[in-house]
Amino acid sequence: MPPRRDTVSFLSDYGLADEFVGVVRGVIRTIAPHVAVIDLCHEIEPHDVGAGALLLARSVQYLPSGVVLAVVDPGVGTTRRAVAVEVEDTGGPTTFVGPDNGLLAPAVAMAGGATRAVSLTNETYHLPAPGPTFAGRDVFAPAAAHLCAGVDLDDLGESIDSLSLQPGILPLTRVENGKLIAQVLWVDRFGNVQLNAGPEDISTLGERVAVRYREEVRTAIRVTTYDDAGPGDVALLVDSYGLLSLALARGSAAETLRLHAGDAVTLEEAT
Amino acid sequence: MPPRRDTVSFLSDYGLADEFVGVVRGVIRTIAPHVAVIDLCHEIEPHDVGAGALLLARSVQYLPSGVVLAVVDPGVGTTRRAVAVEVEDTGGPTTFVGPDNGLLAPAVAMAGGATRAVSLTNETYHLPAPGPTFAGRDVFAPAAAHLCAGVDLDDLGESIDSLSLQPGILPLTRVENGKLIAQVLWVDRFGNVQLNAGPEDISTLGERVAVRYREEVRTAIRVTTYDDAGPGDVALLVDSYGLLSLALARGSAAETLRLHAGDAVTLEEAT
Amino acid sequence: MPPRRDTVSFLSDYGLADEFVGVVRGVIRTIAPHVAVIDLCHEIEPHDVGAGALLLARSVQYLPSGVVLAVVDPGVGTTRRAVAVEVEDTGGPTTFVGPDNGLLAPAVAMAGGATRAVSLTNETYHLPAPGPTFAGRDVFAPAAAHLCAGVDLDDLGESIDSLSLQPGILPLTRVENGKLIAQVLWVDRFGNVQLNAGPEDISTLGERVAVRYREEVRTAIRVTTYDDAGPGDVALLVDSYGLLSLALARGSAAETLRLHAGDAVTLEEAT
Repeated sequence: MPPRRDTVSFLSDYGLADEFVGVVRGVIRTIAPHVAVIDLCHEIEPHDVGAGALLLARSVQYLPSGVVLAVVDPGVGTTRRAVAVEVEDTGGPTTFVGPDNGLLAPAVAMAGGATRAVSLTNETYHLPAPGPTFAGRDVFAPAAAHLCAGVDLDDLGESIDSLSLQPGILPLTRVENGKLIAQVLWVDRFGNVQLNAGPEDISTLGERVAVRYREEVRTAIRVTTYDDAGPGDVALLVDSYGLLSLALARGSAAETLRLHAGDAVTLEEAT
Repeated sequence: MPPRRDTVSFLSDYGLADEFVGVVRGVIRTIAPHVAVIDLCHEIEPHDVGAGALLLARSVQYLPSGVVLAVVDPGVGTTRRAVAVEVEDTGGPTTFVGPDNGLLAPAVAMAGGATRAVSLTNETYHLPAPGPTFAGRDVFAPAAAHLCAGVDLDDLGESIDSLSLQPGILPLTRVENGKLIAQVLWVDRFGNVQLNAGPEDISTLGERVAVRYREEVRTAIRVTTYDDAGPGDVALLVDSYGLLSLALARGSAAETLRLHAGDAVTLEEAT
Repeated sequence: MPPRRDTVSFLSDYGLADEFVGVVRGVIRTIAPHVAVIDLCHEIEPHDVGAGALLLARSVQYLPSGVVLAVVDPGVGTTRRAVAVEVEDTGGPTTFVGPDNGLLAPAVAMAGGATRAVSLTNETYHLPAPGPTFAGRDVFAPAAAHLCAGVDLDDLGESIDSLSLQPGILPLTRVENGKLIAQVLWVDRFGNVQLNAGPEDISTLGERVAVRYREEVRTAIRVTTYDDAGPGDVALLVDSYGLLSLALARGSAAETLRLHAGDAVTLEEAT
């Protein structure tokens, strides 16, 4: 019999202006009153599966053991599968519940890879629904709660090959003529611009790095903390996730440089 | 002696930019540390009692047994009563706490109707307040917490006739010359436009329905799920609450059609 | 051995669009699963230490015993100290954890003043961090969680003189020629304009008070509750924190008067 688990970490694109998040919490608490829900984030842009996948991948190593419930689901009600994916228990999350659209894949990979997976087809564990459009409430939340209450993964639906799960698409860097071609992964609230590259990718570059994007070029200074940069300097540092970020001391690099998630950026030696 | 209850579902128009929600939670936890609080929604437009009442009515069947605390209270500090309303325990919420201004009424009705009600006049269960303007903190939160801690409803204040409670006002549909005259109840984050009508109200209409509002007319296609509609099609479907909604596949119907809560909409056979 | 504590009240400028708040909660729950976290507010403007300090001071008396975790930290990664500050246990919070930049000071003073303080230098209680920029996750959250789990304050780092803690700066009022020179402390969601003055500061003024700011002058009527003011009247009342506030019945005084936090305001007898 599987152990009871007592935490659901919950990510969605539901926003906080409607009752969606609260209703999902209500459903979980009705089925599994012992569970604490951690709201990871609900302000993912509607239907932005890629941003949700990145956020979950950044967070997963800091989440307690239990269930991760993630819902960014533009294809709700279509043929996309609703799934639960188990990973080896290494102290972190052990089961991920959500749509099979790539949202879960990067986090599942970071947590060690899928060991078992099911499609959530057993309607015994669904809520009866007047319409087919709120799977978070009617399918995913009950699955997460029943898993915490001790229901076995295999009872939730038919077993599926974990190799058949939709892969996540993370942009790759490449090097061309000594230049690193990278991409903006994320702009955070403070305007820091995270790239899909780590310090090892620019180990041959010096303290001053030319940053090219669109028709622009800026010189960034490599520093260790935000305030090491002088006022107005563009800083390039290793951020709290171990990736390269462009930043301004007490200002928004994203606003000043006009960079957004998805933008292509080239790093090379400054002349 | 009434049973201890361990969940407060909490709705307000406090927003999240100030400390109001956190302080209410602090008060509840100080009085009743065993209680879990579910934030249903705090982004109701300031003073919009009607929107709060609708949100609560949509949610109530999904909330666990316990107390519902709802505060949208433009008349705070005036003669409007602060009340606690008990309903028959059918597994859902059993006591609703809030202002007597219609906010609670539709949810109370959906939960089976009031069996007992009191006005929260017993100041023993209030916090001492420097000013009369934060009833959520000083009157409603303590009442909710004391109910959870096992205080009897009748100890919170004088008994009132539940027939004297302010009714909620839900807009009604009507049929005129074979046309359904309806109203927009709610626009959600995804731009779906919920009407105050169910599928039974348009059972005589076919697969193509003319939607008239202001000077506009659009043809909507009746579908089962969002993605059944073609790109750009206006879809008419039964939503997850069992009501008719206008929707666009992966787009915002509200934005495209320029519809808002409260707008009048007519449905009839498309020609 | 210090007692276990079971509540962390959590304030930050992290916003809710990223995963910062969720990750901090994940870290706390991993270390101290018995702890409940109360989100006090996370929408402090990025780096606005003063607004965070005011919010915390307004809230502290309503928070349950336990730990307060507060992070508004523009100098993260620099020489500013990370601290934990203990106050006399009077039923409220007993330890404040955050940066030593004035954020904690007003609340610590309101809670009775610091009795012990440490600099969080013991890396045993930090998370290993790929970069130095997310102290909330790597330093502050673990400290708060370990305190709740029963670790003694002195184990978290070297003892520091509580007199060396950065003071908070609260604006003072003054009286000049019978006029009260005050300042706007806070504008809340409802547009109420809180001043840094209490009713005792205008005890010599009558029912009609002239409010001067920039080139404007308005007459405010002293009332007890918002709805005592007539439509369009500017009301001056004692708010729920015991301070003077300018308000409009069912409207936004801040918007109508164009007042913002930090604005200077003079109150005198209306002629």
